[in-house]
Amino acid sequence: MKDILIKNAHIVTMDDGAVYRNGCVLISGTEIKYVGEALVNADNAEVIDARGGIVMPGLVNAHTHLGMSCFRSFASDLPLNKWLERIFKIEDKLDDQLIYHFALIACAEALERGSACVNDMYLDVTGTARACLESGVRAFISRNVVDADGEAGLKRRLAELEEMYKLYNGREGRINVLASAHAEYTCSENALREVISRAKSWGSPFYIHASETVAEVQGCMERHGVSPIKWLASLGLPESTIAAHCTVVSREDMSLMLEHNIIPVHNPVSNLKLASGIAPVKLMLETGIKPALGTDGNGSNNNLDMFRELFTASVLQKGYTLDAQALDAYSAVEMATVNGAAALGYKGGRIKEGFAADVLVLYPSLFLEPVHDVYGIIAYSAESCDVRYNIVNGRVLVKEGECLTVDKERAAARLKELCAALF
Amino acid sequence: MKDILIKNAHIVTMDDGAVYRNGCVLISGTEIKYVGEALVNADNAEVIDARGGIVMPGLVNAHTHLGMSCFRSFASDLPLNKWLERIFKIEDKLDDQLIYHFALIACAEALERGSACVNDMYLDVTGTARACLESGVRAFISRNVVDADGEAGLKRRLAELEEMYKLYNGREGRINVLASAHAEYTCSENALREVISRAKSWGSPFYIHASETVAEVQGCMERHGVSPIKWLASLGLPESTIAAHCTVVSREDMSLMLEHNIIPVHNPVSNLKLASGIAPVKLMLETGIKPALGTDGNGSNNNLDMFRELFTASVLQKGYTLDAQALDAYSAVEMATVNGAAALGYKGGRIKEGFAADVLVLYPSLFLEPVHDVYGIIAYSAESCDVRYNIVNGRVLVKEGECLTVDKERAAARLKELCAALF
Repeated sequence: MKDILIKNAHIVTMDDGAVYRNGCVLISGTEIKYVGEALVNADNAEVIDARGGIVMPGLVNAHTHLGMSCFRSFASDLPLNKWLERIFKIEDKLDDQLIYHFALIACAEALERGSACVNDMYLDVTGTARACLESGVRAFISRNVVDADGEAGLKRRLAELEEMYKLYNGREGRINVLASAHAEYTCSENALREVISRAKSWGSPFYIHASETVAEVQGCMERHGVSPIKWLASLGLPESTIAAHCTVVSREDMSLMLEHNIIPVHNPVSNLKLASGIAPVKLMLETGIKPALGTDGNGSNNNLDMFRELFTASVLQKGYTLDAQALDAYSAVEMATVNGAAALGYKGGRIKEGFAADVLVLYPSLFLEPVHDVYGIIAYSAESCDVRYNIVNGRVLVKEGECLTVDKERAAARLKELCAALF
Repeated sequence: MKDILIKNAHIVTMDDGAVYRNGCVLISGTEIKYVGEALVNADNAEVIDARGGIVMPGLVNAHTHLGMSCFRSFASDLPLNKWLERIFKIEDKLDDQLIYHFALIACAEALERGSACVNDMYLDVTGTARACLESGVRAFISRNVVDADGEAGLKRRLAELEEMYKLYNGREGRINVLASAHAEYTCSENALREVISRAKSWGSPFYIHASETVAEVQGCMERHGVSPIKWLASLGLPESTIAAHCTVVSREDMSLMLEHNIIPVHNPVSNLKLASGIAPVKLMLETGIKPALGTDGNGSNNNLDMFRELFTASVLQKGYTLDAQALDAYSAVEMATVNGAAALGYKGGRIKEGFAADVLVLYPSLFLEPVHDVYGIIAYSAESCDVRYNIVNGRVLVKEGECLTVDKERAAARLKELCAALF
């Protein structure tokens, strides 16, 4: 594969705050080889002229459910519990093949809207894995384990989880399989311990939904006498845990998160839309926690736009806490890049030599000017359609705003057919 | 001018909930002549094939400051009072010509992002009026009156306001001049009464910022012993008043708003970003108030995207009140169309025979499917770049996503030069 040289770029590295007003980035294979202001001599490289636009790390969507594209705009304006009832009925009918089609749409959307990496959790992974391999996105995937239906169901799901780990982990240097449990309220202690033990033996993070609503926390108090975070912390966690939502967490929970390296993934749009609440991100940051950011699935968000997500995270936290510095533009971009990669444990989220070659190019636009503050432009002005190039693992997946790896017209026709049968 | 026929459209009329799955719209002159499912015979019309996409009323941005495009990303992450200090220093240097250039950029942005109509309030109006005339946007404009500098300043501003009314009101059937006062805290009782008397004699709404922050309300209590809304209500208001923000309002304020036809304009992004607070929109709706929606200026929002605004309004109200039905998708779209036009007092915001021909076309997109709920798609999935056509007052101003009336490249070059001198 040819090297890629991006030149004429306003580079936001997210590496100790370094910004180059007129710089270039050289990509060799799957890594960044050079970033800086010296014009690199790269005669054989494919050249992308950023036209003076913004070059930044590809975004990391640290919590999503790719297979949920069929649910976009379904069960609108309902709270989480009522929304789930309606979703579950349809999810019962989903299989590998359906999930593959829906996840492929989600991959195209994630890529065109600026994500390089997605952290997926869903019912099944074969379909999701195929979609991620085909689209080129960097992906962490997992079959979420539950045992509400007893021992036999648990065994089957654990076997599936192990099988997929063998089949997919490490594929193309960009597919990773995580051990995930759905949530405290759908898993027995035994189920949680079984999943945690897989994460430990694989040396990867354990992944779970936690503390999404007041009702969930109250239920856990009744079942175990402690909050979901405290319950998890008591089970002997691996080196790191990724906890999606963490909307309803106490100061004690936050101390435990820091102590046990439980990294929250903030999903502001989904949490607002399902009326789950508003996570105390300002307090988390003050505690020393480094939250990541996610969109959740297309059923609860209706959109997989990480630019919209980081915008929402920042302005929401300011307005909610009445502190305009509660989550500044830089910190919001950091959540969507550096913190996401750190949570997932790979060398990415920065434009830096030796880091994963996940790079976005936004062309300059009249509506992204003037750039008094480049982080302010990214957080408060940029929209997903400003993404012109999305390079993942050294490969150009989006060019001039169009995803090269997914046939969108075919996917749209297939979506119509499949939804007509499902709903 | 030729008639315009839009066909093959999923039409969201906002007229008593009527939606046509495969309909057409006929525009004749500046009005909608027909909407429905029968294929209209219009041999001489210009035909726009909506390709099965969504056709809806152009959005109404009921509170903005068009001249603030130079402030995009300036003074990020500051609360309102500190942000204002930095803004005022630059605003002192602005003149008609500068405001014209900045407002022209804002008009192009508003149009490409889906607004048909803007309600502007700023220092000067000649520049703004020229930009609005040139770009083709429907506009309500006003010179905001203050008298913090005494009687002479007030006289000058009132004279300017009257002069601009004579010059611009009614131009091209789409430029309207409103009588606006900046706010209670920048106007004496006399200044407010003077502006109110102009609104009354012109038979148009009186326009003012009100109850934006806790500090403003406290200040008004100290100065007048009552809240800003109660203070305004005591001054003998005209038939209708447009009050921007209304973030901090009591139940008594809301009753007064209903009684005196004070229509709040909700600006969720600006209010969040400047840490002003969260307006009680759910309670307003329950009171019977019909709030409109606005972006505020590019200094506090960094973007004039009414799709992002209506999305934010809806999810914010749900999450903040922990009620997923607090502001449903339909009501959010209604705020951005029907309620905005009603507040401004013109026959628009609906796709309906005899109404203003302000029509948006969004092509179908893989990321706007499936359409289980078309209002959910508009409120939670659509983004401004989905706007393919924006027709205002019967004239195509945006075609295939590009504004036809503003030379964006030239505007960008001019913006760079002007900002280099200003900041």
